[in-house]
Amino acid sequence: MTSERPAPPNVNDDRAIGVIGTGIMGRSMAGHLLAAGYEVHVFNRTRSKAEPLLAAGATWHDTPGDVAEASDVVITMVGMPADVEEVYFGGTKAVPEGSGLVGRSRSGTLLIDMTTSSPTLACRIASAAAGRGLAAIDAPVTGGDVGARAATLTIMLGGDAAACERARPMLNRLGKSVTRLGAAGAGQRCKLANQIAVAVGMVAWCEALAHARAGGLDAAAVQQVISGGAAGSWGLTNLAPRAIAGDMAPGFLVKHLLKDIGLARECAAESGLVLPGLETAERLYALAATHGWTDEGTQVLYRLYDHGLAAETGA
Amino acid sequence: MTSERPAPPNVNDDRAIGVIGTGIMGRSMAGHLLAAGYEVHVFNRTRSKAEPLLAAGATWHDTPGDVAEASDVVITMVGMPADVEEVYFGGTKAVPEGSGLVGRSRSGTLLIDMTTSSPTLACRIASAAAGRGLAAIDAPVTGGDVGARAATLTIMLGGDAAACERARPMLNRLGKSVTRLGAAGAGQRCKLANQIAVAVGMVAWCEALAHARAGGLDAAAVQQVISGGAAGSWGLTNLAPRAIAGDMAPGFLVKHLLKDIGLARECAAESGLVLPGLETAERLYALAATHGWTDEGTQVLYRLYDHGLAAETGA
Repeated sequence: MTSERPAPPNVNDDRAIGVIGTGIMGRSMAGHLLAAGYEVHVFNRTRSKAEPLLAAGATWHDTPGDVAEASDVVITMVGMPADVEEVYFGGTKAVPEGSGLVGRSRSGTLLIDMTTSSPTLACRIASAAAGRGLAAIDAPVTGGDVGARAATLTIMLGGDAAACERARPMLNRLGKSVTRLGAAGAGQRCKLANQIAVAVGMVAWCEALAHARAGGLDAAAVQQVISGGAAGSWGLTNLAPRAIAGDMAPGFLVKHLLKDIGLARECAAESGLVLPGLETAERLYALAATHGWTDEGTQVLYRLYDHGLAAETGA
Repeated sequence: MTSERPAPPNVNDDRAIGVIGTGIMGRSMAGHLLAAGYEVHVFNRTRSKAEPLLAAGATWHDTPGDVAEASDVVITMVGMPADVEEVYFGGTKAVPEGSGLVGRSRSGTLLIDMTTSSPTLACRIASAAAGRGLAAIDAPVTGGDVGARAATLTIMLGGDAAACERARPMLNRLGKSVTRLGAAGAGQRCKLANQIAVAVGMVAWCEALAHARAGGLDAAAVQQVISGGAAGSWGLTNLAPRAIAGDMAPGFLVKHLLKDIGLARECAAESGLVLPGLETAERLYALAATHGWTDEGTQVLYRLYDHGLAAETGA
């Protein structure tokens, strides 16, 4: 009879964590891991972007493979699926053959891809990793740069259940919600489901407010009246007021949403699934891109309804 | 120097209120007005539906015109724009020439149409009313049967500012938010903006979850993970769980949403506005109607993605 309880067993021995990709998202994440006392090893295509982390105690390496050799766990947060492929498999100028993560990781290493990427590629990585005695999971996130800074990301896991459990202590430092959706690729597919709802949901409030404005109504007043009920959405509450005010500064870039829409469309095509709403959103964002708005925030879609949509869409 | 202040002047002398249309919505609304001490006069196409109100103290009349003669203010809450036209102008079998509200109201009567109807028709009514020394405003609502029962409706006003102010004491008994959006028709246009966001927003979450499901993911798990972030919407939170569970019981009927989409499309066409998202939603709901789902709840759209959408849409 004692009030003292034994300390919990050390759930794992992962101390050295690699972070590949120290852009807006990866930099915040690596910072949280450093702050939590992990040993952090970094690589980034542009070394200067990693400098603040190096100053805070992270160790620089010249290739992803070098990071892998020094790490128990490697987190990747890069741009496009092609970048993911390069980092994991190498065979390019930036990451020569044999310098990728899969080729250079020590047996038992856990690889975690947090990039929004293709479910099919996630399956290929998991399979190649397993063949070399590694574990690889997909763990894309929502919450953006704000969520990364505040460590409030939502993290969606796909992969072997034990590997996902092993990743949790680290991922809990980065997000407020960490959920395993299924086998390899399931995290990516969940993230793409999220992006479908984001893209089509943007069309919903843009068209509602364009309709109000075309009738001479004050779009801001309409936004206030309708956002509390069945028409309500995150975008109507958070992005519409910015769009109405002409503030198209990016929370999330048009070009990144277009990439995610493309991934979701590929994925749907593989399943024989027809998504007419997503096709419409893709067509509208592609039109926004022809206006040169690729580096604007996704709320710029609202502006499209001012720009002779009728003529351009052939409708 | 006294702490007593004079009582506010009696803002108006409206005591007798007519309610035309005592269906699910109108019945609750008339009940609140009775409970607030107003004298309530009613007409409904099917008299039996008005019986509970008559038992509670309302007075029956055989035509809308008879209601108007007994009332200071008349509220209409009927089904379709054609019903609104009949009630205001008569000239049909049910409401003969000269028995409509515009023809029979006493000078100074205030007419309030709370049906979701056409902005153009609202303008026509306001103009005809003004020509006969009456005031007419449009005041459609959101919040559904639940909001009508709980007197928590959102009420969107269009019309002369003084007439809207005059309506407030009554409307405050019916809703929690009463906002004037502009001249005659502005309330209807705001309501249609709401319905555009509702219809296209439904496509957003249905396609997101259809995509998740097609990849073998648990749609309920995905709904939980994505509903708290940028993909979030009222429908994803409130309707998606029902749809996933196969519960298509109506909060709002497919046939009513199709009517509202049609009104919004007409209205957009008049403004030369192209709304590709709304067109897509209309096409999908029309397809749902061909499955015989017109009396299901609007969340039934989710089921469409199980039903050979590819073949039927020709996509």
